[in-house]
Formats: sequence, C-alpha cells, structure tokens
Amino acid sequence: MLSTTPRTTLTRSKERSRTSRSDLHAVLDAGLICHLGVVLDGYPMVVPTAYGRIGDTLYLHGSTGATSLRAAGEVCVTVTHLDGIVLARSAMHHSVNYRSAMVYGTLRTVEDAEERVAALRAITEQLAPGQWDAVRRPDKKELAATAVLALSLAEASVKVRQGPPKDDEEDYALPVWAGVLPLTVGWGAPDPDPALAPGIPVPAHIAGRGRNA
Amino acid sequence: MLSTTPRTTLTRSKERSRTSRSDLHAVLDAGLICHLGVVLDGYPMVVPTAYGRIGDTLYLHGSTGATSLRAAGEVCVTVTHLDGIVLARSAMHHSVNYRSAMVYGTLRTVEDAEERVAALRAITEQLAPGQWDAVRRPDKKELAATAVLALSLAEASVKVRQGPPKDDEEDYALPVWAGVLPLTVGWGAPDPDPALAPGIPVPAHIAGRGRNA
Repeated sequence: MLSTTPRTTLTRSKERSRTSRSDLHAVLDAGLICHLGVVLDGYPMVVPTAYGRIGDTLYLHGSTGATSLRAAGEVCVTVTHLDGIVLARSAMHHSVNYRSAMVYGTLRTVEDAEERVAALRAITEQLAPGQWDAVRRPDKKELAATAVLALSLAEASVKVRQGPPKDDEEDYALPVWAGVLPLTVGWGAPDPDPALAPGIPVPAHIAGRGRNA
Repeated sequence: MLSTTPRTTLTRSKERSRTSRSDLHAVLDAGLICHLGVVLDGYPMVVPTAYGRIGDTLYLHGSTGATSLRAAGEVCVTVTHLDGIVLARSAMHHSVNYRSAMVYGTLRTVEDAEERVAALRAITEQLAPGQWDAVRRPDKKELAATAVLALSLAEASVKVRQGPPKDDEEDYALPVWAGVLPLTVGWGAPDPDPALAPGIPVPAHIAGRGRNA
C-alpha cells in the first residue's frame, strides 16, 4: 500500500487514485524521464531529467554544478504517461487518459561508492536497457563530477485515468462524436552516429526494443 | 528574444539554449500537457495539466478547488518533448534528445468573462484542434466552477538537444555501437465512446490529425 499523507491523498477525482506499491512501480518503470520539482530561493523550478529505480528508492544524477541539484532538499518527482485525448460532447468534459506518479521527499546525496555505481547503472538502464553491459563504465574522474541523489518512494501517489469521456446526462443526445484518440509512443529506426566506425552492427537490445516505448 | 534573467540563463550546456521567442512558441505549441510546479506549504509540487497559448500568455485551468491552483502564486511551467535516446560509447555520455521550455512567473486569476472563454477555447484546442466548434460550449454553471489562470511568457527559457552522442575522444575507437534511438509519438485509431449514438462518424479534424502527435 502507498502512503496516505495529506499530500498523497487525492481530494478530487478520488476514483483515479491507485494505492498499491506495484502500481507505483509500474508507472515509474514504464517511464523514460521524470519532472523534478525543487524550490530555489523560494521559487518552484521544474526540470526534466533521467531517473532509475532500485526497490523503493528512486535515483537521479547530474553534474555536481547543476542548479536544480544544488537546491536539493525537499523535492517532488512526477512521471507522467499520456495515453490519449478524451473527446467529450462538451468542451469542459474534455480530458486526457494518463498514468502518473508523484513522489515527495528529501533528496539524499549518495556517498557510498557501490550504491553510486548501482544508481548510475539503474539510470542508464532505465533509458536504455542492456546498455550498461555494452559500454564503457564511469571512470574515477566522471564519478567525481557526478552527483547521485536518492529519493525514497515512501511518500507517493499514483493517478490513472482510462476509458471513454463522462458527459453530462443531457449531452449524450447531442449529435457529437465522442471517444478517445489514443496516443502511441514507439521507437524509430536506430540512427547511427556519423562517427561510428564501420562494421559495428546495431545490437539486439537496441534494434529489438519492442514497438512500444 | 527571450529574457535573460538569472533563472532563464543556462549555466551549463549553454549550446543547448535557444533564445528566440518563436522557438518558445514552437515548443509550447507542439505540446499536449505541461508540468506545473508550485510551492505548497514550502514544498514543491509538480502536476501534469493541460494548457493553451494566446500570444505571449499561457493559460491553465482547473477546478476552483484544486490544491495546485489554490497554491498559485509563483509557478514554473515546463513543457518537454522527448525526441530520442542518445546512445553513447560510455555510460556517462548517454543522454536524450529533447526540446523543452520553462516559463517562470506569477499566476494571474482571469476574471474577465471574454478572456476566460478565450482561454478555455485555447486549452481545448491545444489538446484537440477543431473541437471547440464541434462541441457544447461551457455553460454558466461550468464557468463558475472553473478557475482560469494566466501566466505571462515574459520570463522563459528554451533548451534543445538534438544529434548524435558526444563521446570522449579516446572512446571513439571502442567497438561499441553509438547513435540515436528516435522516439516517435503518433495517434492510434479513434476509439468511439461505447455510449455513442449510432450514425455519428469520426469528424475529419479527429480522424485526419496528422500521424505525428
């Protein structure tokens, strides 16, 4: 079960709430980037960034000089999948189908060498499964320049909307098409680096990455 | 030209910065949802939400009871397009190709009736171009229950990364495939509401919405 703190308890559209930890993991694992919210000099700042998950910890990384990571402290990390546009018979009932997760907490700077490497592995694999074992690992200099941050998944909420529009009773009689326009996300053909040495084929874990992103 | 305030001036990867207002408009106009960052009781909160643009004003809406809109005040609105995964020869040079815009400012509650309707139209049309003229418009009761917020585009930044990976000089000799795995976003077949009355065809502005979302 997920937490039921005030900020993770929905006050509206409660039927969209998902409360199991596996729902949270599923939304996070299906994502590629998150939106990290921090407070900087009293102002909110929202930056897209990569992430990875190990168990009930989310990991972020960045340059040790990154503004958003210097702010650190309390954060909100949101991962959103947009699944379709919900087309209703009235303007105000238009909506979107989506799956989203919001995680609240305090960023912990990861100092342990082993945890840092595991985190960087998780972040790399989240973007590109199979790559960690195929590429050059981080060296000492790269590790020194990289901040690794951990966020517990203890306080999180998941919202999901799926299905057709919900119109006002009297609007169902209107001669207006209604339904869902699904959004599909997939992979294009791998585009080789122009500097790629000849004779290096696209590896199976990249070429064969299912149709759906 | 876009603003050059401290929070919209990139401190790192400056080559990713775009500084023209048309770049900002292009990123915003190509989006479907934004991530709205607010500060609530001192904590950041990041919520996905719909938006629309008219000139140099961004509009948001929500229930008058929405937590994120009650917080209001200073916000950061971020729109991100993920265009591909950048696969490098070393783990730490993995990246993503993207276009993103961040807008900073104070939300203004829109009170003027005409501006409120224009904003709701822009928000509806951003999600579903052509729908405003096809569906029932908001009535008095709906308008009363809806908060409409405006955000000036005066303070904004745009970041774009495109192209192949940039590896360390000595890594180009590694026998590792490198390049970009493009992410493609498109539309599936319109899925009619099970409650749709018979004989209502999918209108052209929905069926014919280009392949790319």
